[in-house]
Amino acid sequence: MRSEQSVLLTDLYQLTMLQAYYLQGLNDVAVFEMFVRRLPAARSFLMAAGLEQVLDYLESLRFTSEELQWLRETGRFRPEFVDYLAELRFTGDVAAMREGTVFFADEPLIRVVAPLPEAQLVESRIINLLQFQTMIASKAARCRLAAPSKSLVDFGMRRAHGAEAAMLAARATYLAGFNGTATVLAGMRFGIPIFGTMAHSYVLAHDDEAEAFERFAECNPREVVMLLDTYDVESAAAKVANMAPRLQSRGISIHAVRLDSGDLAQLARRVRRILDERGLTSVRILASGNLDEYGLRDLLASGAPLDGFGVGTRLDVCDDAPYLECAYKLQEYAGAARRKRSEGKANWPGRKQVSRHFSAGIMCRDEITLDSEPCNGEPLLQPVMRHGRRLAPSPSLPEIQQRAIAGLAQLPAELRQLEGAAYEVQVSPAIRKLASQLDRTMP
Amino acid sequence: MRSEQSVLLTDLYQLTMLQAYYLQGLNDVAVFEMFVRRLPAARSFLMAAGLEQVLDYLESLRFTSEELQWLRETGRFRPEFVDYLAELRFTGDVAAMREGTVFFADEPLIRVVAPLPEAQLVESRIINLLQFQTMIASKAARCRLAAPSKSLVDFGMRRAHGAEAAMLAARATYLAGFNGTATVLAGMRFGIPIFGTMAHSYVLAHDDEAEAFERFAECNPREVVMLLDTYDVESAAAKVANMAPRLQSRGISIHAVRLDSGDLAQLARRVRRILDERGLTSVRILASGNLDEYGLRDLLASGAPLDGFGVGTRLDVCDDAPYLECAYKLQEYAGAARRKRSEGKANWPGRKQVSRHFSAGIMCRDEITLDSEPCNGEPLLQPVMRHGRRLAPSPSLPEIQQRAIAGLAQLPAELRQLEGAAYEVQVSPAIRKLASQLDRTMP
Repeated sequence: MRSEQSVLLTDLYQLTMLQAYYLQGLNDVAVFEMFVRRLPAARSFLMAAGLEQVLDYLESLRFTSEELQWLRETGRFRPEFVDYLAELRFTGDVAAMREGTVFFADEPLIRVVAPLPEAQLVESRIINLLQFQTMIASKAARCRLAAPSKSLVDFGMRRAHGAEAAMLAARATYLAGFNGTATVLAGMRFGIPIFGTMAHSYVLAHDDEAEAFERFAECNPREVVMLLDTYDVESAAAKVANMAPRLQSRGISIHAVRLDSGDLAQLARRVRRILDERGLTSVRILASGNLDEYGLRDLLASGAPLDGFGVGTRLDVCDDAPYLECAYKLQEYAGAARRKRSEGKANWPGRKQVSRHFSAGIMCRDEITLDSEPCNGEPLLQPVMRHGRRLAPSPSLPEIQQRAIAGLAQLPAELRQLEGAAYEVQVSPAIRKLASQLDRTMP
Repeated sequence: MRSEQSVLLTDLYQLTMLQAYYLQGLNDVAVFEMFVRRLPAARSFLMAAGLEQVLDYLESLRFTSEELQWLRETGRFRPEFVDYLAELRFTGDVAAMREGTVFFADEPLIRVVAPLPEAQLVESRIINLLQFQTMIASKAARCRLAAPSKSLVDFGMRRAHGAEAAMLAARATYLAGFNGTATVLAGMRFGIPIFGTMAHSYVLAHDDEAEAFERFAECNPREVVMLLDTYDVESAAAKVANMAPRLQSRGISIHAVRLDSGDLAQLARRVRRILDERGLTSVRILASGNLDEYGLRDLLASGAPLDGFGVGTRLDVCDDAPYLECAYKLQEYAGAARRKRSEGKANWPGRKQVSRHFSAGIMCRDEITLDSEPCNGEPLLQPVMRHGRRLAPSPSLPEIQQRAIAGLAQLPAELRQLEGAAYEVQVSPAIRKLASQLDRTMP
């Protein structure tokens, strides 16, 4: 089971179209671009993420002998076409926005330039990879904006949609500014800092809550976090306060306590008081349970003495916008621009670039231009792959995170609020002219 | 990269708790059950799915030497504990609802009985697997109820949340009654029927739409489906009608046309007229684009002459309810029942069973009982694993689908509507009594 790497993780029509391209000899250079048609409600911006996995996929793209055999046996494909697939590699060029870049509707976040069959085949998986991480990074960035100085940890593995979603959600939230994740495998694979506490079942497995806390601290002295809400939060906080000196005398300090249900703001105040009265001012209070960027904002606005948050389900499934209206569209074939005109789904034709303009260090305007036009601002699409190979080693996740945080700081103030605000994205006159020309000449 | 099989696809706290269990010698038998606290808005029922992947996971659970080495290097775990993990296997018993079973809030859909560390460790991945497929199967069942006699195909791979979500969405929609999927790898791995059409890019890569259609039919004569909405739907339909006799004379029949944008009902009527006028009454009309169970219901209620549907994004991400409020909770440890009392998150204690009662072949009432009570109705939790091994080979997906469809036919009429309706689920007096006893005796 290596679904993540299989070329057959694609839509059947890609293969039937490829068979037609092959038989017709349609092998000229195609230009596809992926963009988001419109931002989800309440979003002011999106944050690009997922490019690393796309480049991995393109570099390693090949059909295994088992897959080729299965394709033969379906009876849908001609033998010579399956032989052709056996040799197929991705040999094209890719330009893309760097991960962590803020972007807007209609702006291409990746451009694939390759022989038509190669550029076509990869559509389904490129969308699958870029949509998900971009969606999650964008929501994580909103959480970071809502709680700029707090510890934020991804808790969402269990309700993420499967294994890869859990892994890539950990990655996307971290690159957008989270401190880490609870998902162990994301620590191993991606080097993301991992964090953990205890579960209610741990407390329930003991006859006595205080005993559960003390044993846990002894067994995991490195970072002790006690979960307070299995029975009664305040009495649990008192138990923690009672045992703190005893643990301290054995060299174990209590790092934090966690609240996971109830009125988090009110409980945090009560727990803070109980801890402070016993001199435990350095014990942090963490909260989790049903949180998202709005929950973070409201808790902090209420002045609740909370130091960190586990943000889980709503983030990892992006519950208020669980998909992006994105598309990967043919913009040019054999040197000629192309444009789909379907009702409500038309797109701008040609090979494009996005340039960003700043005023006093703050983003003020983007312009979508043809790639052949001069670019006055900062060009957002950068070449990352040539002839099927990466042009440079990928940046590390901490480097991407730094860039993402710097990018958020360049957002206009109104875009840093959680309510959706508009940003000016101009479409160059040359693109508009090209679109009109195509509308006149195409069937 | 085998995220799907890694034991480290779990939350860090599972491992820190395991270390504590290990050091404390807490190794008695624990009983965990997973249930859904409440149904999402507008849902009248859920459909169990994902058990097959859970059993695969439990049977193959082990830490690899690379994973153990990495755990050692984190500095979080004692060497003797890591040695213990090296030997850890899942040796417990599992009872579960069979896939395709309809169920309701508070009803356990799986019960895990195993030494505490084993039953604890698997929590995160069991939720991750069962939540997703159950959520998708439940929505797919609603689509099936909305369009009982139509062809329904999963089109959602590209916007599913990663690779495993795409694969398991294809599986869950099929077992809930879909005809198949567009995801090729799901055809190879799960034997699910695959379906495909053509994309707009195929038409755009040609200078002439009619030429694109005709070449496609020649290259893929087995199942010809023409996409009509790249430019103008009615003129595309006329082109299809024009070339049909020519193709027919060469032994190629046009199976269907597809609409992917605009007013689908109105366009379908116009296309039907164009095709029928030319005697092409057997050419089916398929629709796709932003569909869900409500879209299907409304299109069919309008009398639109549509024969089949590609249902994609909204289904595969379950956009109106992208997570379930589910929990996997300790119900019993070392022979004693346990109960969490957190605000708003209390659950029923003890080792439970669900019995279903019928009246004239229609479900009329469920009862949640203690497993030790006599069960009068049909018991929904069946033993599926003993000592870490499956008790019987798994049913095939077509068998599960048959059971699922039979189950939908047993739903009361009001539960087969898309608006949420209530169903009677009783909690036995013995469970209520046990809960009260625990509330009096626990801290």
